[in-house]
Order: sequence, then structure tokens, then C-alpha cells
Amino acid sequence: MNSTAAGTTRPGSPAPGERYQSVRDLTPALCQSLEPEDYVVQTMPDVSPAKWHLAHTTWFFETFVLARYASGYVAYDPHYHYLFNSYYQSAGDMHPRPQRGLLSRPTVAEILAYREHVDQAMQELLATQADHEELEFRLTLGLNHEQQHQELLLTDIKHVFSVNPLQPAVNPDLPMAAAGAGPAACGFQALTGGIHRIGARGDGFCFDNETPRHRVLVPDCTIADRLVTNGEFREFLRDGGYREPALWLSDGWAAVQQQGWKRPLYWNEDLEHEFTLAGPRAIDPAAPVCHVSYYEADAFATWAGARLPTEAEWEVAAAESPVEGNLLETGYWHPVPANGNSPQYYGDVWEWTQSAYAPYPGFKPLAGSLGEYNGKFMCNQMTVRGGSCVTSADHIRASYRSFFYPDARWQFLGFRLARDGG
Amino acid sequence: MNSTAAGTTRPGSPAPGERYQSVRDLTPALCQSLEPEDYVVQTMPDVSPAKWHLAHTTWFFETFVLARYASGYVAYDPHYHYLFNSYYQSAGDMHPRPQRGLLSRPTVAEILAYREHVDQAMQELLATQADHEELEFRLTLGLNHEQQHQELLLTDIKHVFSVNPLQPAVNPDLPMAAAGAGPAACGFQALTGGIHRIGARGDGFCFDNETPRHRVLVPDCTIADRLVTNGEFREFLRDGGYREPALWLSDGWAAVQQQGWKRPLYWNEDLEHEFTLAGPRAIDPAAPVCHVSYYEADAFATWAGARLPTEAEWEVAAAESPVEGNLLETGYWHPVPANGNSPQYYGDVWEWTQSAYAPYPGFKPLAGSLGEYNGKFMCNQMTVRGGSCVTSADHIRASYRSFFYPDARWQFLGFRLARDGG
Amino acid sequence: MNSTAAGTTRPGSPAPGERYQSVRDLTPALCQSLEPEDYVVQTMPDVSPAKWHLAHTTWFFETFVLARYASGYVAYDPHYHYLFNSYYQSAGDMHPRPQRGLLSRPTVAEILAYREHVDQAMQELLATQADHEELEFRLTLGLNHEQQHQELLLTDIKHVFSVNPLQPAVNPDLPMAAAGAGPAACGFQALTGGIHRIGARGDGFCFDNETPRHRVLVPDCTIADRLVTNGEFREFLRDGGYREPALWLSDGWAAVQQQGWKRPLYWNEDLEHEFTLAGPRAIDPAAPVCHVSYYEADAFATWAGARLPTEAEWEVAAAESPVEGNLLETGYWHPVPANGNSPQYYGDVWEWTQSAYAPYPGFKPLAGSLGEYNGKFMCNQMTVRGGSCVTSADHIRASYRSFFYPDARWQFLGFRLARDGG
Amino acid sequence: MNSTAAGTTRPGSPAPGERYQSVRDLTPALCQSLEPEDYVVQTMPDVSPAKWHLAHTTWFFETFVLARYASGYVAYDPHYHYLFNSYYQSAGDMHPRPQRGLLSRPTVAEILAYREHVDQAMQELLATQADHEELEFRLTLGLNHEQQHQELLLTDIKHVFSVNPLQPAVNPDLPMAAAGAGPAACGFQALTGGIHRIGARGDGFCFDNETPRHRVLVPDCTIADRLVTNGEFREFLRDGGYREPALWLSDGWAAVQQQGWKRPLYWNEDLEHEFTLAGPRAIDPAAPVCHVSYYEADAFATWAGARLPTEAEWEVAAAESPVEGNLLETGYWHPVPANGNSPQYYGDVWEWTQSAYAPYPGFKPLAGSLGEYNGKFMCNQMTVRGGSCVTSADHIRASYRSFFYPDARWQFLGFRLARDGG
Repeated sequence: MNSTAAGTTRPGSPAPGERYQSVRDLTPALCQSLEPEDYVVQTMPDVSPAKWHLAHTTWFFETFVLARYASGYVAYDPHYHYLFNSYYQSAGDMHPRPQRGLLSRPTVAEILAYREHVDQAMQELLATQADHEELEFRLTLGLNHEQQHQELLLTDIKHVFSVNPLQPAVNPDLPMAAAGAGPAACGFQALTGGIHRIGARGDGFCFDNETPRHRVLVPDCTIADRLVTNGEFREFLRDGGYREPALWLSDGWAAVQQQGWKRPLYWNEDLEHEFTLAGPRAIDPAAPVCHVSYYEADAFATWAGARLPTEAEWEVAAAESPVEGNLLETGYWHPVPANGNSPQYYGDVWEWTQSAYAPYPGFKPLAGSLGEYNGKFMCNQMTVRGGSCVTSADHIRASYRSFFYPDARWQFLGFRLARDGG
Repeated sequence: MNSTAAGTTRPGSPAPGERYQSVRDLTPALCQSLEPEDYVVQTMPDVSPAKWHLAHTTWFFETFVLARYASGYVAYDPHYHYLFNSYYQSAGDMHPRPQRGLLSRPTVAEILAYREHVDQAMQELLATQADHEELEFRLTLGLNHEQQHQELLLTDIKHVFSVNPLQPAVNPDLPMAAAGAGPAACGFQALTGGIHRIGARGDGFCFDNETPRHRVLVPDCTIADRLVTNGEFREFLRDGGYREPALWLSDGWAAVQQQGWKRPLYWNEDLEHEFTLAGPRAIDPAAPVCHVSYYEADAFATWAGARLPTEAEWEVAAAESPVEGNLLETGYWHPVPANGNSPQYYGDVWEWTQSAYAPYPGFKPLAGSLGEYNGKFMCNQMTVRGGSCVTSADHIRASYRSFFYPDARWQFLGFRLARDGG
Repeated sequence: MNSTAAGTTRPGSPAPGERYQSVRDLTPALCQSLEPEDYVVQTMPDVSPAKWHLAHTTWFFETFVLARYASGYVAYDPHYHYLFNSYYQSAGDMHPRPQRGLLSRPTVAEILAYREHVDQAMQELLATQADHEELEFRLTLGLNHEQQHQELLLTDIKHVFSVNPLQPAVNPDLPMAAAGAGPAACGFQALTGGIHRIGARGDGFCFDNETPRHRVLVPDCTIADRLVTNGEFREFLRDGGYREPALWLSDGWAAVQQQGWKRPLYWNEDLEHEFTLAGPRAIDPAAPVCHVSYYEADAFATWAGARLPTEAEWEVAAAESPVEGNLLETGYWHPVPANGNSPQYYGDVWEWTQSAYAPYPGFKPLAGSLGEYNGKFMCNQMTVRGGSCVTSADHIRASYRSFFYPDARWQFLGFRLARDGG
Repeated sequence: MNSTAAGTTRPGSPAPGERYQSVRDLTPALCQSLEPEDYVVQTMPDVSPAKWHLAHTTWFFETFVLARYASGYVAYDPHYHYLFNSYYQSAGDMHPRPQRGLLSRPTVAEILAYREHVDQAMQELLATQADHEELEFRLTLGLNHEQQHQELLLTDIKHVFSVNPLQPAVNPDLPMAAAGAGPAACGFQALTGGIHRIGARGDGFCFDNETPRHRVLVPDCTIADRLVTNGEFREFLRDGGYREPALWLSDGWAAVQQQGWKRPLYWNEDLEHEFTLAGPRAIDPAAPVCHVSYYEADAFATWAGARLPTEAEWEVAAAESPVEGNLLETGYWHPVPANGNSPQYYGDVWEWTQSAYAPYPGFKPLAGSLGEYNGKFMCNQMTVRGGSCVTSADHIRASYRSFFYPDARWQFLGFRLARDGG
């Protein structure tokens, strides 16, 4: 994150202790319908058990805030540093990621007690250290980190439930979007080529990978005014899209063959139903397609005679829209059809861009262990933008960069089209 | 099992309903110290989650008894047949074994309700069908099957806890064997060569693989009067046993290299401590070595200038001893040193024999799906004998044959030596 | 091999130097139709390149004879010991088996020069050391070893050519068996149960695994008077044999699924043609089925209501027949139909038995490195008997034991049936 | 390639038939020291056997020129289309790449006959069709394709020989660079930020991925005036570079762990010798480091407080230098030290850039099967620039883009440093 811009408490914002508790309390609240058994399972290396998320986010505050600023603070349990470090090599050894699902202990109850212990220590610290800039920065970073894991927690439990033949619902009572006439035909908005600026504006928290704000040269192009829908993707599929190698990147076609992809991750083979956080539901053709890899997005674009936008094009276009949309707070926890007004830049699905995740010119990672947060992943991954239906509204912005390997599908991932020329 | 001999209720034995309930109640009782999270984890394909054992044994009665004999019985949940069939291909498709740990649902509470439902239906059936021979046979088979899974349940949860850096205890209060002078030097008892008989005697339940009782030609040989101990195995280890290919079978040496074996499965690298169902404890040099593969047993025997007994030699020798020893009921749940009197044929550890698991001459598997119980595994595995410290006392006998792949180590597996000649 | 019986030159037998040269010369002669490129390829770890066989057999004489008995002998090339040691751990490190196909050098010409160098040194040694018993034994062992590799060489090059879309012939001029009326219906000969003797008789060379000759108890049974044919196996196949798990051992069914087996290894999917050392040819329904695994043999036997013979049953029955049949010298290099008179115990195909490869009672491997020849493989493999159509006639006998993993198919492997009872 | 610019015969250039033959003849000439066995081996999926290169380049002319323009041309062998298609999915099925080393046939001699047949047909065609623009374009493309495979052929045979314990030389007589004083300290040249143009200039052949020439915004930066040397890389290594995760990209550190990297691919563990096309030789500390992955290049740059240049920075800087350097024609076939004058942009080693291989704005792949040449690889790979010591001098230019996965090391791959700011 941007260490100059971040962490300044703006007038009118809640006190640090309140902000802290409000974000922290949401994490167990998102899990409230889970049984203890549900917190344990890891279905693939990308997925972490729910209780690991509960513990890791707590470890983050313990390690990067309490251990440094709370004088005399003693680690809650000496094993937890090993168990709940994710990937901070400079902070010490860690339990191997693919083995997180092999641990039945600590139990959920024990981890909730750990959370309570750390929360209490944090509150004590925040009550006494309110004006400390680096502490304030790390507090903010920790809360943004927790929000990222709130999203991951829902994403991961969806995968866990999806492989269960019983097809359980995380929450059977999630509302459904009203059936409508479907979205209008997709329009393409012109983007005038030339020098633009992208990257964090310095008016609030940002991650280090959004910096420095810098000039980019964008070509004349047009960009779709909404996301690609289930209905459109089904046409691609019925037109033989998954059987025609000419449409695919070479690595994409290899993935189709080796992983046996025939449709988006959670679609039923009838192409009429999909698995959701509310259990199996009918596919809404008007809603954005979701849980597709970069390869599938790229193949669709080729089929449609278009391409994906670059991240610069996306950011320039998105920066003109207000940051609002179908985010966590709407309560759908699933993509919904565009209403007539919104270009869907924020929420619904993270949008694949054509840009490999790379450092911005002049990028400097944070110093110390926190420098491992973002920079070391700048290879082999593609940038995604805009947040999803399980992203908190106060967590997303035009300059936000997330990133996934091009074969990732378990996240809420979709895309919009773009075209060369004016 | 022997369909002629098995299943006759002998005078004085408890009523079927009592027998049934007594075995069934033990299964959840063995788990009483577990947390819900502990029932979920599968650490490798050989290991099943504890709640899978609870459900599968119940499915066995539902499928092979209730569905056939309880008129109008309706399956408790239509998904359970798929989820809890283990390997009965002729009974239908099944959930893949390596994925048992991916299922958080049904929960432990739901499975206990399933058990209760089936138990009630079984009691009703048994109350009205007491004289039905095939039913009686299947009841007995199901109870023996349940006892096998009771042992597996403890074996598997030991593995689950062992990979956890927290090293939890299944039961921290397990007694320890009194420290003694250590076992006497190992003696070798002569076995007179010639025609002997092995296999089930027909005086009680047996599995089909113990039949028919038949003549075998046994050579003159001697057989050790106790099991190989931790102390003896440590000598082998300190003498470089794990580094000298000349001592090992070719496949054994490949296993040592590929799996990085350096000592018995649960030994600490200090060679002084091991992981037990009571958590980490000091290794008792006088107790039988445990959790070694066939390859390790064979290499030790080569190092010691001896060999393992064949299963015929073992059975002929063991048949002269009473069926008693350190079994589940002693409550140690861990091997203990031989007292002066016992040759340790029963309990402590399953004993590797030199014999590949194969059909006895004239062997006929049971008809129908139950024929898949034993016969289809008669390739690539080695016969083990005598039961272990987590085998029920009324479940073991001289003719009992169990079997494991030669690289298996997670079971309570040990061995005794034998020698050619008189 | 039996160090007491082996190696004595019997009256009338050729001089050692002649015997030596005659066996040695056959090896390159078998390769005469190959191009240099053909000697290089390794299609799977079981297969060795032809030039490796040429070199390894030479290394065997260099290491176990010349280095020990030819005073002042200097190794031809210091790298060859590492490159051409197969699995003698006690003789030093070796080049990894699965990487034999990665070596283009030494070239075929260089290896033939190596052979010539060693042959010359051997002839000099044999000319001066004719009466040395241990030398004579090692000479005989080396020649039997070379004969084993002659068979392997043809077996391996068949596999190499089989995966080539050009389907080349090793020798397009191999004769075909005359088309006949097909074999008579399979008869079953009774074998009277009781104590028999098996193992090497001590009247010529044998390998150590054939010793000691010992008593075995054989049950009353019957054994087929010929091998199972292609036509019979095709019936099994057309009856759905490869789709019915109830017919298969558990590990066999797993192999069918994982390796996608649908028919014998070299059969075309039309079930009418197969790949042979003469290239593709029509399947002769009267000829013995070949290139089937133990699992396929066992499944066929189950389907046919029979079983495979044990190795003791096989040897007792085969010992009554003269050692003659369709062996290397007949020149077919492919199984041929039984004529009316022969029970086909020798030649055509190695016959799977129901017996796991294990030490005979009282077995002692040879001392030193040569003890690694046979004994260390006595686990996980099944005994096969009788030699094949590419086995030299003077290399096979009733007591000869070879062995393969139960999923092996690239060897000339077939089977006959047996049945319990008189 | 640029279909408008490419393929026009410029005045004074040799006749098409001469150009054709001159490039074609070089391919077998590069192999002249190889034995037939050397043409067969494939050491990993990335590597192709030498004879496959000889055949595939011939297939390219047969498929994309003769089949289309030589009326009545009949394929030389109907199997070759399957065997020697590399990755043109739209041209039909192909033999799996990892299995190219399993084919001993066709032999080298057969493939040379195939080359001669196609060469003759090409000469006949070129003699009669001299003015055909699309033909001329495809001829030029085919010759550039052949030049790429000439480089691959040397690169691949180096890998094949490197894994052979005999450490053979492809050519033991390759000259060595004169030992000198070593290169001067590395200087950094300023690159003035702003709008520049990159991409093919349209004045000769180019590949489609170099088009369209377009504007790029380059930041102020400096770029090294020579390549990083062996001596400098050895310092990094001795400073613990391969043991310090903080220096590495996350995927890079995983590669170090999983693949056991401890030094550049062909370096001996003494850090003093390396394997070359002339066999083992002493490492020249003044020569450019070679056979390092992107991850190693990036880790070195991090250690050195610098970064790699982007491909735009590289091209802008390199475009000012003449296209000359240590290329194939110098005959070293190995990187050599910089002389005082040359910035080493061309030859010696392909230079890793920080840029993921991606389409230029407005990029359009060629139509039809030839569109698979470049475009479908635009994901997961990094762009490399400048050619190497085994690249033909008339094959390289400032705008040339090649690309490899970031873990590739078997190519002649090195790097130079860059720095942010003026």
C-alpha cells in the first residue's frame, strides 16, 4: 500500500477501535450458518478452510501490529505463528498451504477465543496509541487484509460445498434478483486514445501495487457498457466454443484438454442450473457469466470478434463511474443482471483484463515483511479489476488491482469485451 | 466368512439385539473425546474420516440387512448409498475414496441420527426374525465388520493427529505399561515340520478368507517366542540399517529412497520419543516395535540373520496359545512389553508374515456383493496375523487373516522372527 | 543359481570358449535388421534400448569374470561401469534405469567394439583357466544372463516399434504358422494331490531361486492341456469382460480404469489384427493369447469358472513333458496354435501362475553381488513359467522361475487354466 | 509476420531458389558432427530430437507451400503430416510433443531423402512462380522458420549431450574467445522518457507479433551498456542468492525449491566449469552469464538493486546500435566477453525483459493456420530480445520478439540490468 497516502484518519471517520471492531465482527458473522465441520475442509490448494481464514487474519494483527507496538505482548500460542503465517517467508517458516485441510485442531471454538484475545489486545493498544502514523497504517492494512479474506472465505466455502454430492447451501435464504426483460444489447463506449493517468490518487488507503500513479498511453478503442452474460456465454458454448482449438490460447486449449473443461465451473451439465451460495439455482441468462478462467474469457472474446480490455483501458473507463454496484452489502452474493443505468464496473464479478500483473513504472514494494504482500506475485498472473458480489463496498476503487493465474475459476471471475479503434 | 459355520447362535450367548447394541455402542464411545472438527479430516487415501467410519458401518446394516429383510424399509437418505459404500462395485457407484475428507456434510450429529435410525430399525427386525439363519449370519458379519472399523477408526485418527504440529492426544489419560526389566532375550521355539492343518475350525464365526481349513506342509523351523522390540529395532537403525541397500528387498529400497524413510512411522528423529494415541511419549525399548512396513520388517530380519514366519508357521504355532494379550480391552491402546509368560501372538501389533495374501486351496468367496469383502484383494498384499492393541478380544483368533500392502505403516504393524531348520 | 550343481562341464559339451562365443554371437545377430537409430529408444522404464542390452551383458562378463580372474585386466572405459550396471547396488552406483533412453553415446559401433574387446579378453582367459570351478560357474551364469537379455532385447524392441505410427517390422520375413482347424477343445488333465517335489534337480545349471528342491503339498486338481487362445479371449472380451468389475481383482480393476485397458496390449481395436515382430498381422484365433497382464489372466479365469494353476501344480504337471515347443529356434518369434500333441508347457508364452514370487523353504541367495540377481525381487511379483517363443531352447526347464509385476504386459505373457478337485 | 511488408524481393537480393537452398543447406551442415544415434534423443518435452527438426522444417514447406502452390504435388509420405506437424491444430492432429523421442523411424537417412525430395519440388516451383507474392511471402516465412529451428537444433542437442555422463562435444574444435582483461565496469546509459515507437519498420521481413509498429510511453530510465557476466553472477551466488527467498518472485522461489536449482543450468558445482557445445570448459568470468531462467535474472536484479528492462525500453535503446555481435557466423557458439565498444544488444544471449509476451495494440495474427505461429502463445511467457550466439545474423533485428516461460533455462538466455529514473 501507499505508505504516504494511507492511514490518515480523515475527519468524520469513526474512531480506530470502532473501525477495527466493525470489520473484525463481520468475519465470523459471514460464517454464522456454518457447522463446525464446515470450517475444516480444503478442497484444493487454492482453497483454505474457513477456520484458517479466521485465524490467519488474527495472526496478521498479532504479528504486524501487536508484536511491534503492544509492549509486553506475548504470543497467544507459540504454534500459531507457524500454523497461520500464509506466505511471509521473512517472518519465518510456515505450514504448507496444501496441507491446511489436514488440521482438525485448533478447533473453531479455540480460534474464536484466539480472535477475542487479539481483539481485546488491539482495543487496548488502539485506545492508547491513536496518533501513531505507522500503527494507523498497519491497522488500516490489516483491516483491508481482513476484508480480502472475508471475500476469500465465501469464495472458498462455495467451492467446498460445491464438491459435496449433498449440494448444501451456505445460506438458503439469499434473495434472487427479480426476473427482468434481460439486459439491453451490449453497447460499446469510445475511449479516446492518448496519455491518461492511472494508479492510486492518494486520497485514501491503497495497496502498494496501485502505486505510483503514472501516465499511460492508451490507444483509441471502445469498451463494452456491461459484462458478458450467461446467455451470451451459453451461445458460445452451444456454438462449439469448447471444442474449437482455433479460438483458444495454446495454454488455454491445454487446460481445456487436461482439466476436462466443458462449461463454467459451477454450471450443471444441463446448462440450465448452477451451484450458488444458496445451493443449486436456475441460471439467469441476463446475469453476468461467472467462474470462468482467463482462457475462457479470451476464447469467448476471440469468438465474438473482440478482445479483453487492458487494465489501463479499464481503469480509465471505470474511473468515470461511481463506486457502486452489486457488492457484498446488497446481500445477493451472486451476480445479478445489469439494470439499464449501470456499466457494472464495480461488483458482480472481478473482470479479467488482457494485462499481465506487473509492477507499475517506479513501483517500490513496502519495506520489510509487508513487502511480500503484493510484489512477489508479479509474474504469471493476470490483473483483474472491479471487485465482485462478495467484495465489501468500502474495499473497492477504480485503481484496485487483484490478480489470478489464468486458469483460476473458483473466484467470482467474469469479463467484459473491448475493441480496437474508435 | 464361512457360510456353513458362521451365524449359529450358540447356547448361552446373548440375544441378537443385545449383541448388536453392545458392538454398535462401542463405536461412538471410542470417539467420545473427539471434537466435531476431528471427525472430518482425511490425511491420505488409506485414512478415512472418523465420521465416515460411523456412517459406513451403519450403511452396511442398512444395505445388507435392512434393505433385504426389513419389509418396507426405506433408505434413510438416498444420497447415503453413494456416499458410504466403500468398495462394493456390485452394489453401485461410490464416492471416490481419496475424496472422503472433502465432505463436511453430513455433520457428525446428522450421522449419529442416522445411526440411531438404523439401530432402531435393526432392533425391530431382530425382535421379530430371531431364527432366520441368513439374517443371523449377516448380523454377525456386520458386527465383525463394525469391529474392524472400530480398529480402523482409532488407527486413522492417530494418523490424523500425528500430522498436526499441535500433536494432540486422542486420549491423554491412557495408562502406560509399568516400566520393567525389559523382556528376556528372545527365544526360538521349534516347530516340527510335516503336514499340519490351518484355517477356520468351524466352531464360530470366521471370514471367508479363512476357509477351507486345509492341510499344509510346514518345514522344520523355529519361531521367536516374542515380538521384536523397539530396543532391538533401534540397534538395527543405529547400525545403519536404513542406509544399506543389501539388507532390503528391491521394492523396499525404492520405498526408503522415494518416501524418505529413516525410522518407524511415528518415531521422533531423536529416536527416544514417539507419537501415540495419548500424544507424544517416550519410546519404551522393551515394547514391541510398531508402525513398520513389511519392507522394514524384512530388512531387519535379514540384518538379524533370520526371516519372517510364513502364515502357516505362524498359525500352527499360535494355535497352541490362548487368545489373550494386550487387546483393545486392556485400555493401553499401545503395544506393551512382553511379560515373561506370553508369546505375544495376540494383540500388541499385527504381525507381518512372509506370505502373500492368496486364496486357500478350494477357496470360494461368498455369493453376491458380500463376495467382494475379501477375495478381490488377493494380490499384492501380505498377510498379517494376531490382531493388535486396538483389536477387540472377541474379534481375533488363530486363523484370522488380515492383509496390507507391503509399504503400509499407519496400522499397528510389527513382527516376530523365524529361522529355517530344527 | 545353484552353486553346487551349476557349472560342471558335462562330457561331450563344447569347450567353454566355443560355448561362450556361440551365445555371444547370437545377441548382435538378433539385431541385424535394426538401424542405428533403433538401438537408442526407451519407451517406458521397463524397456531398455537395444544398445544398452548389448553393453550391459558385456559389462556383466567384465565385472564378474574379467575383473576377478583376468590378471591385469583394465576396464575398457571407466564410465561404462556406471552406465551399464543394471541394479547391483553392492557393485556401485548406476545410471538411473528410466534414463537409459537419454543417452545417444556410446554409439552402437562403440558398443560393438566394447563387445569385441571383452570377447577377446574372455577367450584369452578361458584358454588358460579351463578347470577353474568358480570361473566356470560364472561363465555359465553370464551366458544364461545373456540369453535372458536376448529375449528382453526382442521383447523391448517390439514395444519400441509398436508405439511408432509407422508400425515398422523388426523382421518382415518371419514365417507364419500354417492356418489349421484350430485347436481341439481344451481338456483338463487330473493332477493327483499329495506330496510332490519341485525345484532344480541338480543335473545342470539353474538359478538360485530354483533351489532348494523341496517337497510341496499339492491338492487334487485338474490342469488344462493347452494354453488359452486368442479366440477364447476374444469371447471374454465380447462378453463385456473388460467392463464388469465383479470379474476382476481390486487392483486389476483399478489398472483397467487407470490405464484404459480394453484388450491385450498389441491388439488393434478391430480385434482382428495385432502388432508382431513382423509388423501388423491378422490375429490367429487358434494361437495362444499373448501380452496380457496377470489381472487379465485372472479375470478371464474367473469368467471361465476356473483359476490359474499354482507354480507347484504347473511344475509337477510340466515335468512330465519333454522340454520342446515353439521357442526362439523355431523362428516364428510369435505364439502359434497347439498341434494336437503338445500341452504347450514350453515356449509360446510365459504362463502366469497364481503364485506370488517368494523364496523356497531354505532358500539362500548367492554370496556377494550376485546374490542381488534374484532374491531381492521376491515381493509384489507373480511367478511365470515355461518360457516363450523368444526364449532359447537350451535356456528353459521345468523348474525355471521368472517373475513379473501383475500389471506387466509387454512380455510374451499368456496363461492356461486349472480347476480345483479331481 | 507482416503480410504487407514481408516477402518483397529487394533489388540485388539473390534469386529465391538460391536463397532457399542456402538456408536449407545450413541445417544438415550444423549437424555434420553428429552420429545417427544423436538425432534420436529427447531429454525433456521442450527438447526435440535433431531429426525431428530436420523433418519438421521440411514438412513446413511441404504443407504451407507445395501443397498449396505446386499443382499435383503428392505428399511424400502420408504419415509425415501427423509425425511432423508441431502445433498447428487447424492443420490436423499431431504426434504428441513429449513422445518425439520414442520414434526411431524414419531414420536420419530417410529424413534426408525427404528433405531432398521437397527441396527438388521447391526448386521446380520457385523456377516457375517467381512473381507470386503470397508464395514469396510463405517462402520467406519458411526460411525464417528454418532459421529458428537451426538455433533450436543446436540448443536441443546441447541439452541432450549435457545429461550424458560421457559429456560429449557437439564440436570439440569450437574456438575460444581470447582471454582478456575482462569487461569494464558496467555503465548505465540514460534513456529519455516520452513517446517512442517500437515494432517492425516495414523495411523487410518480420513476424506478425512485431506488428503493428506503434507508439509507446517510456519512462525516464537507464539501461546497462553490457550484459551481466558470469563473474557478477557468481558473486550473487556466493552471497547466498539461491538461499534467500526475499530476493525471489514467489513462483521463482517455488521453482528453486522444487527443481533444486543451485546455479545456472550448465554450471558445474565447482562454479568453475560449464558444459558447452565444445564439451566441458572453464567458465570465463568476463563472458555473459547464460542458461538462467527469468526468475534467476529477476532475483539477481533485485539483489543488485536494479531491475530488468521492459521490452519497449530494450528496443528503443537497441535500435540505435548496428545489428552485429557474437552471432552464429562468428563460430563461437558460446557467449564471449564484451569488447570495449559493443553494448551486446545482438547475439551472445537472448535477453530476458520484464515484459510478459502480449499482443501489441491492434495486433492481428495471420489468417488461417499460419495464424497459430505466434499469437496463441501470448500468455504466461516473457519476451526475450536480441538473439544469441547461435542465431543467424540475417535473422535478428531490433524489433524481433521471442518468448519463453519464465522457468526456461535450456535456451541461450541471459540478461542486462536497468534502473528507474534519469
